[in-house]
Amino acid sequence: MKVIGIGLGLIGGSMLLSLKRFYKNAVFLGTDQNEKHLTKAIDLGIIKAIAKPDDFKNADLVIVSIPVDSAEKCINKTLDDIGNKCLVMDTGSTKQSLCEVLERHPRRHQFLAAHPIAGTEYSGPQAAFETLFDQKTMIVCEVEKTDPKLQTLALECFQNMQMKIRFMNPKAHDVHMAYVSHLSHISSFMLGKSVIDKEDDERNIFDLAGSGFESTVRLAKSNPSTWVPIFKQNKTFVLEALTKYISNLELFKDQLQNEDYDNLYNTIIKTNKLKEILDGIK
Amino acid sequence: MKVIGIGLGLIGGSMLLSLKRFYKNAVFLGTDQNEKHLTKAIDLGIIKAIAKPDDFKNADLVIVSIPVDSAEKCINKTLDDIGNKCLVMDTGSTKQSLCEVLERHPRRHQFLAAHPIAGTEYSGPQAAFETLFDQKTMIVCEVEKTDPKLQTLALECFQNMQMKIRFMNPKAHDVHMAYVSHLSHISSFMLGKSVIDKEDDERNIFDLAGSGFESTVRLAKSNPSTWVPIFKQNKTFVLEALTKYISNLELFKDQLQNEDYDNLYNTIIKTNKLKEILDGIK
Repeated sequence: MKVIGIGLGLIGGSMLLSLKRFYKNAVFLGTDQNEKHLTKAIDLGIIKAIAKPDDFKNADLVIVSIPVDSAEKCINKTLDDIGNKCLVMDTGSTKQSLCEVLERHPRRHQFLAAHPIAGTEYSGPQAAFETLFDQKTMIVCEVEKTDPKLQTLALECFQNMQMKIRFMNPKAHDVHMAYVSHLSHISSFMLGKSVIDKEDDERNIFDLAGSGFESTVRLAKSNPSTWVPIFKQNKTFVLEALTKYISNLELFKDQLQNEDYDNLYNTIIKTNKLKEILDGIK
Repeated sequence: MKVIGIGLGLIGGSMLLSLKRFYKNAVFLGTDQNEKHLTKAIDLGIIKAIAKPDDFKNADLVIVSIPVDSAEKCINKTLDDIGNKCLVMDTGSTKQSLCEVLERHPRRHQFLAAHPIAGTEYSGPQAAFETLFDQKTMIVCEVEKTDPKLQTLALECFQNMQMKIRFMNPKAHDVHMAYVSHLSHISSFMLGKSVIDKEDDERNIFDLAGSGFESTVRLAKSNPSTWVPIFKQNKTFVLEALTKYISNLELFKDQLQNEDYDNLYNTIIKTNKLKEILDGIK
């Protein structure tokens, strides 16, 4: 088996490392716009060598893990370049626009729209690790549009990677992600900004912030090159989620301003429900 | 040495367990409004027995770790009950109102206003553990109002507990906490609410939420009995911080709505600064 990773950062690098555990005889090649990442990926053993144009012709699997705006063009071109038996999958955080763009590609049946629900706030090949996806969810969109043989290949990979598979249409995917992922990032970025704006003296953040603050702003370390394209592509649903979030914060503010502590208490108690829900996320 | 804990939950319980490591011959007693907590604290070895009214007369140290609104009354009464050589300290998350209330107590010099910057989202004696405060910051307010001998006792305890000590006036404490602690909790509570409101099917939160969401809403599991009194006592500064947070979120929303992606990128890049700052919080 010949596997090519396009984009060898946290997600792409971890996908290859994860697959490597189960496809010991496969050859892993890759490309990355960032030359340093490419060298690093070879050094770290994520890929054996750089994928040359000819390698695409006889590849079995191409995994595209680059920012979601560049992914559309890249997947279009990759589908043109591959042979008739190759599967191309992406790992991006938005799906509706991508699936629309690829809808009429003559090799649409050789593509699988996938999104692994896993990540960290770090990026680059040095952030990649082979267990990132173990026991995590892989969302697969429009599976029926992928050739059945290639569906089997993809599902075999995900099962080997110990992932739970969840099928979903692209719009539902983007709506859910706006709430459970994209909004968390915005909340974290702006919490970080509010504290940095206030605390001229960084020492204060350093000394006074506890693990609670650290946990809440963890995502504020995330890479804007990844996240601005996600917000852009999922603009409608992100704006919807953000608007609801702001109005919940306004509600909290009103209740505090009006000293309506009973309702504040009830609001928080309802939110505590997350305890049981989150204990299931591991 | 005789140490009494009033309130034997996460913070109070951990304070006693932490001190126990260094004061092996000390007797640890306690009280708690919640009878189950009291039994649990004895079972877990946090205290040896319930503190009776007479025990306060010859106690050396009383540590009050109960919700901040009840703490004011409780500390006032405790100062009345103790002997002349005993130190009373609190561990509450707000300080201005408390210090004002105690200002004219004839035994003000036997009180130390303290706030350990540590905690988890769990509560009760079963959540307490002896290393919670290791290497964490202890904020001490108005130290000059405490009797020098009792200052020495307190600082010795904190040093034994391996805590970093930071002196601060009560108002500065409350302002900083509004930003680096209280706001994180509100952001988390309301993020949790927004997602619960949207996702009728909890299975979606369960399957689709990654570790990013989990981290961002971790604090949404926190106990309202602790947090509503904190928001109440620090109302002015919490409202200030919350207002700035909402206006930063509005700014983000405007930039996204107007497709001003360059500025969105720049805002996020500035927030990434937290990476270096937070790497110092351990």
